[in-house]
This record gives sequence, structure tokens and C-alpha cells, in this order.
Amino acid sequence: MSDIRVGVIGAQGRMGSHAVEAIEAADGFVLTAALGSSDPIEQILDAKVDVAVELTVPGATEANVAFLVDHGIDTVVGTTGWTAERLDGLRTRLADQPQTAVLIAPNFSIGAVLAMRFAELAAPYFDSAEILEIHHTRKLDAPSGTAVHTAQRIARARADAGLPDMPDATDSDPHGARGAAIDGVHVHAVRQQGMNAHEEIMFGSDGEALTLRTDTFSTSAFMPGILTAVRTIGERSGLDVGLESYLDLA
Amino acid sequence: MSDIRVGVIGAQGRMGSHAVEAIEAADGFVLTAALGSSDPIEQILDAKVDVAVELTVPGATEANVAFLVDHGIDTVVGTTGWTAERLDGLRTRLADQPQTAVLIAPNFSIGAVLAMRFAELAAPYFDSAEILEIHHTRKLDAPSGTAVHTAQRIARARADAGLPDMPDATDSDPHGARGAAIDGVHVHAVRQQGMNAHEEIMFGSDGEALTLRTDTFSTSAFMPGILTAVRTIGERSGLDVGLESYLDLA
Amino acid sequence: MSDIRVGVIGAQGRMGSHAVEAIEAADGFVLTAALGSSDPIEQILDAKVDVAVELTVPGATEANVAFLVDHGIDTVVGTTGWTAERLDGLRTRLADQPQTAVLIAPNFSIGAVLAMRFAELAAPYFDSAEILEIHHTRKLDAPSGTAVHTAQRIARARADAGLPDMPDATDSDPHGARGAAIDGVHVHAVRQQGMNAHEEIMFGSDGEALTLRTDTFSTSAFMPGILTAVRTIGERSGLDVGLESYLDLA
Amino acid sequence: MSDIRVGVIGAQGRMGSHAVEAIEAADGFVLTAALGSSDPIEQILDAKVDVAVELTVPGATEANVAFLVDHGIDTVVGTTGWTAERLDGLRTRLADQPQTAVLIAPNFSIGAVLAMRFAELAAPYFDSAEILEIHHTRKLDAPSGTAVHTAQRIARARADAGLPDMPDATDSDPHGARGAAIDGVHVHAVRQQGMNAHEEIMFGSDGEALTLRTDTFSTSAFMPGILTAVRTIGERSGLDVGLESYLDLA
Repeated sequence: MSDIRVGVIGAQGRMGSHAVEAIEAADGFVLTAALGSSDPIEQILDAKVDVAVELTVPGATEANVAFLVDHGIDTVVGTTGWTAERLDGLRTRLADQPQTAVLIAPNFSIGAVLAMRFAELAAPYFDSAEILEIHHTRKLDAPSGTAVHTAQRIARARADAGLPDMPDATDSDPHGARGAAIDGVHVHAVRQQGMNAHEEIMFGSDGEALTLRTDTFSTSAFMPGILTAVRTIGERSGLDVGLESYLDLA
Repeated sequence: MSDIRVGVIGAQGRMGSHAVEAIEAADGFVLTAALGSSDPIEQILDAKVDVAVELTVPGATEANVAFLVDHGIDTVVGTTGWTAERLDGLRTRLADQPQTAVLIAPNFSIGAVLAMRFAELAAPYFDSAEILEIHHTRKLDAPSGTAVHTAQRIARARADAGLPDMPDATDSDPHGARGAAIDGVHVHAVRQQGMNAHEEIMFGSDGEALTLRTDTFSTSAFMPGILTAVRTIGERSGLDVGLESYLDLA
Repeated sequence: MSDIRVGVIGAQGRMGSHAVEAIEAADGFVLTAALGSSDPIEQILDAKVDVAVELTVPGATEANVAFLVDHGIDTVVGTTGWTAERLDGLRTRLADQPQTAVLIAPNFSIGAVLAMRFAELAAPYFDSAEILEIHHTRKLDAPSGTAVHTAQRIARARADAGLPDMPDATDSDPHGARGAAIDGVHVHAVRQQGMNAHEEIMFGSDGEALTLRTDTFSTSAFMPGILTAVRTIGERSGLDVGLESYLDLA
Repeated sequence: MSDIRVGVIGAQGRMGSHAVEAIEAADGFVLTAALGSSDPIEQILDAKVDVAVELTVPGATEANVAFLVDHGIDTVVGTTGWTAERLDGLRTRLADQPQTAVLIAPNFSIGAVLAMRFAELAAPYFDSAEILEIHHTRKLDAPSGTAVHTAQRIARARADAGLPDMPDATDSDPHGARGAAIDGVHVHAVRQQGMNAHEEIMFGSDGEALTLRTDTFSTSAFMPGILTAVRTIGERSGLDVGLESYLDLA
């Protein structure tokens, strides 16, 4: 099998520059384009890429992906800012390119994606479920988007399984130690110097606990997810949202 | 839906007495028989049980299950000692009772079963995988059977995915600190006063870690697994081995 | 050295009955009295005890300890309800019995006492410190008294060392995920079925973390602390509050 | 108070270049010399340093420190290779410079130093103690020197307290899952891609556990220890070995 020809758009950003290195270092890939913010996207056509990796900014991603889809180039997108409206527009555009695939992934950490899926599978079997997330001290919002999303999926899985509310006798909590209740799932956010991005999902029943923990120490954590997506996208078509749909989890 | 009529065989043992309590306490079940080691198994017929729970000893379980299958009673078995030969005999016997189901489960801890399955799903996506198990200080063997089984399933999942050997530069380990290599997966056994049965499965790749931990603090940890099996077995037929096949993990 | 003669007051309660068993099982002690709530405390004199262990209720403890001190009996007290006023009264009473010692310990878990002391020692050396406590789901208040006390001691140690406020850029936390700020130390309370009493103290600086975790799985966790106190009290006099003062931590 | 004038020797190595940055960034210090391997050490005199930080190689450190001591310069040493013989020579040399102090610290991680000291203090109070260390996959030796040293200090503390052997009923361990027994303390070494240097010290007694964990994610973890040493050494004289002696742990 010949190497997959890859073009990175947004190659000078933090994620983009890591992606360039990772693609150059990995077997089975050849980097044929690395576009910065001032390079015209048409260069991607000259480079004859099989797969584009779009890692730019919310203001640029929609136009970039439209161009790539119109030229039949499979595209892995890590940029945020894809509203429901934008996704609808992209689906319409893809309908005219039935061979072309786009993956939009808000989180390329395979560990985080696996943990979220495992949490959903485990949720029906335990009385209690809570989430602890730990991040660096420069983070502006609490709790993290990943923790909120995990809580929502746990809540839905519990509801689908017909589980009652979690047991909790707390009747005095003057300072809010029980944290944020997201769809009934308590989420706790720690901000700790020296840490990066970490999530711990705790399940409990009589006599038993199950804990799922993911640690993302650096940007390099996202590279295996990007490489897996680039490797897999040739077998797909249409739009997928979430790296999970490209992993083998059944 | 009327309550499921349950009979416990081996009701005076540690697991059996817990099971009796759990069935009596749970909604949707009625305990109609609780046989000790001196009670004749024929009593189970008078009790008109829908499902039998067999929690005896290796020397008694095969004859008990044979009797129950011959009388068309679905049976959940927690007793060990089911060799490949015994399982073959049981399959033959079940062929004559196509409506009847048997579940043989060496481990009723839902957390442990889930963790093992999650480990298998995660294994292809990480460079490194090791297992730590912690047990009470009265345990005679190391590592635990669950840890060995988990290591084997991780090793098989890695092989199926075509992964290379794990990276490991160790060239000096005079005292054996790297633990037991089970099919290439290192397993470490801690024996700690005050602990019961605990397993931690550690996965790692560049910049990232995923950790799955199960804690079994007491025998009550096994009751949700037994109740799930009793609730589910009416929809099944034939022989299943492992609680996993009764959980919804796809 | 002859065995220490011990009398337990409140021997029928949960802590008391465990203490009776622990004293009977341990070398170096002989149980000479075990008083229930209807037994007159004067029986303790007939039993010629060296050390009394008072594990009753807030309404009874003050009178019991007064009686014991007046009769020159060293006393280890695990009962709560000792207000500043009661402590002052006890100090006055002890002044007339210079040979007699009383230890009032709100928490006999050696692990918890050690962790709290270690937290205080570590606090000056880290930029960040937060506390996670996990308890069973029947607990009425959040956060736990131990967690509050730990936070206060960390805060004081930071202040004494002249540390600035912890770094924390959070400017959006609509659901209170950051938990309870106790003297500036964030405390997070998880309520999880199957757990008992657990505390995790997390410290962080650039590139580094230190985590102290204590798990109290059952009432038996308090027995080593009680035995240590009974063994040590003969060498003491006057009033001490907190098991810590009887441990060798310098 | 005027700034402390600091010279770094070995300023181009991994530790040294981090130290240069850390000293330049911290309040209270001014970097007046940064010597690479080809720079003559005499430059340190021109720079009028108050404190030298020696981070070179085992072959150079002894001569460098001798020169610095002879010129009455307080020196913080992070280089390894200081045998008992070399230390004796240094003590003799320091006897002629009673105002001068040298600190030789094999590990500048404050977290690791604290954990080791806490382990020693906790050891007498628990029945069981084991150590887990996790390192990157390029590490050549197992277990780590820090883990061995921690095990030895735990063993000594247990012996000093008169504790019996730890309870352990293991009679079958065909693959060596129980790890390395260092002075009777079991040490387990995990090698995991994506990790750096981590140690978990586990203590257990009936119903109770205490766990001390240190994570060193990067070289920056050592900078607070170096800065603490530079800040403190002016108040000292003579030779100290181990950062612990410069921390306030009583």
C-alpha cells in the first residue's frame, strides 16, 4: 500500500506544528503540504493530497472545508466553531460529493474519547456516578467542556436504563462543596499548578467502585487520534462528528 | 410483570447467604427456596422456581446443574471448577432442553467485568499496558486470576491489531521489580492489609494515559451482577460463560 | 511489663464494641471492664483499670470523664461534643490531678491524622492545594469536618510561610464546579454508594504534584489509633486534644 | 535584602539550562554567571557570586566543588557521582572553610523528598507497606533509585519501631508478580509510554489505607527545590546531603 499523502492546513499553530511533526515521523504517511495562515489554500491541490488535516481557527475553518469538499478531498477537522447551522451546510455540500468524507473532532485524545464511551456503557450498572476534572490554572471556565459532555452522556444512559436518582442524603452544604450538578451528575473542577488536562469518572454501588481516569499531559496526546483519523478516513464517506465514530468500540 | 421466583442453592455459604438477602431485598424477585448443603435438591421443584442460583462447591455444582437443566430450570452458576470437559457435557445436556439457559460466571463483579471488556477495547490504541492488582494479605496465589485473564485479553487485542511489542529499555532488574510478564503484559501484585480485591489497568502513549480501576470492597459487590443475571436469563437459552455476555456492552 | 488493664465505657455502641474486641485481641492489654449505658460508672473502680476508654454520647461524656479524672484514671475519649467551655472545665479539674492524663481525639484514624499533619508540612512548598473528600451517600453534611479542618491547617501553613493566593484564572463557573472555598482552599465533596470515608489532598507546582490519600473502609480503622493512645497515655499527664499529639511525628 | 548573586556551572545541560531560566525568572535572585563545559571555572570569581549551582557531570563535579569551597563560595550540587570517599574529602576541605556550606542533593523534587520523609514517619503505624514506581520507557534500570531508597527508609523505620514482618500468605507466584523485595519492602516498577517519573507509596492496616503519590512531569519540577536551596544555603555551613535537610519538616 502506498503512503497516504497528507496536507496540514494551519501548520504554524500549536496543534498544527505538532501534527506536521507527527505525520513526518509516522510510517505510512507522507506530508506533501503544510500551509500557514498566509498561504492560499489552492496549494493543497498542487500537492495532490489524499487527506487534509484542518487545524486553523473558527473564522477560517468553514471556508477551508467547503473548498476541500468541493475538490473531493477527505478532511479531518480539529478546529472548533462548528455550529449546528454550519454542520447542516456541510452535509448539503457533501451530498454532491458522495465519495468524500469529513470528520469533525472536538477532541483528538483517544483516551478521553474511550473514557467517555466507557462511561456511557458503565452508567446503567451503578447507583452513583460523579466526575472530577483537573486542569491547569490558566483555564478560564469551569467545569471543562469534556466533563460537561461526559456528565450529559452518563445522565442520558441512566435515564435510558430507567435508573432512579442517585442516592444522596446531603442536607447541609453551605459552601457548595458538592460541585456542579449537570443533568443530575455532580462535576467537580480542580485547578492545580503543574497539571494539564485530566478527568476522573467515578462509579459506585454497594461494595464496589469503578474509576475511569484519563490524563492528557501535552499536545502530543492528540497525535495518535489525528493519525488514526487520517488512516481511516479513506474508507468513509459523508460527515462524522466525534473521533469515536472512527474507533472500533463495538 | 409478576415477580421472578428464585431458588438459591448453597444458601448457607458466604456468597449464598448474601444472595438470599439481596434477592429478598430487591424489587421484582421472590425467594421461594434457599437450600443448604444437607437439603435435597428436589425441594427446588416444589418451590416452583423460575431461576436457580447455584453457589455451592466444585464437587457439587456439576450434578446440581445437571438436575436443574433436566427439569428445565434456568440457572445462574457462581461456583468454580467448570473445566472444559464439564462445559462440554453441559452443552450436550442443554441441547435436549432448547428453552433452558445456564450462565456460568466466575466473577459477578460488574465493575471487574466491565473493566476487562474496556481494557480489551482500549488496548489497540496505546503503546503501553500494565496491570496492578492489590489484594488482602491472606491470598495464597499471585497474580490474581482476574489479572492474568485481563493481561491475556489485552495481549490478544494488541496482537489482533498488529501492535509491536511494548517499548521497554530495561536492561537491569536484579530483584524482579518489573513483575510477571503474562503474554508480554506486565502484572504487579500488591498484598496489603485492609484491602480486599482491586485492579488497576494502566495504558499509556505519548502525552497520554488511560487508567481503569475496579475496587471490590466486600461480597455485596457481587449482588448486582447476580440480580442482573437472574433478571436477564429468562430471555436467553443455551450456555453462556462470563457475566459479560449478559451485559449490554455494544 | 505487665498488661495494661483497660475499661471500655460505652461498650455496646459501634465504636465501643469494636474497641472491646480490639483490646481483647491485642497483646499487652487486658480488658477488665466493659460498661454499657445502664451500668454505673463506679464499676470501673472495682475493675482496677489503668486506662479508661470513653466512647459514649455527648450528653454523658463530660460527667464520665470528670468522675474518672477525680479518681486518677487516665482516659482516652472518642466521644464528640467537647466545646471550648467543657475543655476549660476539664483542664481545671486536671490541675488537681497532676499525675492524670486525658486524650480527647475526634478522629482515631492514624492515616487521617498523619495525612493532615503531612499536608501542613507540605503546604508551604506548593503553589496549589485542593482537597477531595468521598463519603457514603447517607452522610448529611458536606464537606466533611476532617476536610474542613485539613483545609484550615493548609491555609494557615501557607499564610505562615508568606505564600500568595493560589493561581486560578477561573472567570466563569455558572454551576459551582469549583466547590467550597474554605479559607481559600477549595474542597470538593463526592457522595458515592459503596464508599465509606476517604480524603485526597492534592498539591501542585510547575511540573510536579504531591497527593496524600487516606481511605477508611470500616470502623476497625480506628482501633490502631485507640490502642496507640491506650499504650501511650501512661507516660503523659494533663489534657491533649487530637491523636496527633500522641504520635511520633517530629 | 539585596538579591542573591547566583552562578550556574553546567548551564548548557538540561538541568542547567532550566536552572538558568528559573533563576532569571524568580524574585530575589540575579544570575551573574552561566558557565558551559568549555568555560574556565575562574570566571565564577569575576562574577562575584554568592551561591554557585553545580549541575555538570560526575567526572567534573569534584574538582569544581573543591575550587568553589577553597574560594569560600556556598555551593548547591545536583550532579551525581558523590561516593562516600569523595564526601569524606569534601568534609575535610570544608573544615578549613568554616563559613562555607555545600548541599549535595541527588533529587531536587520537593515532592519526592517530602514523600520519602512522610513515608518514614508513617511506616511505624501500618502493617503493610509497598511501593509502586512508574517511569518512561527509556529508563534502563528497575527499580528506580528513589524507590529503593524509600524502601530502605521504610524498612529501617519499621525495624526501629519493632514491627514484625509484613503479613503475606503468598505461597505461589510462578512469574514473580510480587516484584522486588528491598529489605522486605516490595517494590513494583511500571514502564509506561508518556509517563515521566512517578512514585506511589502504599500503607495499609485493618480497615485503612494511606497512599503518598508524587508525580514529576518535567525538569521544571526540580526548580523550586534548587531555588529553595539557593535561598537557604547562606544560613548554613558545612556539608549537607539531601534536600530534606534544607526543608522545614519538624
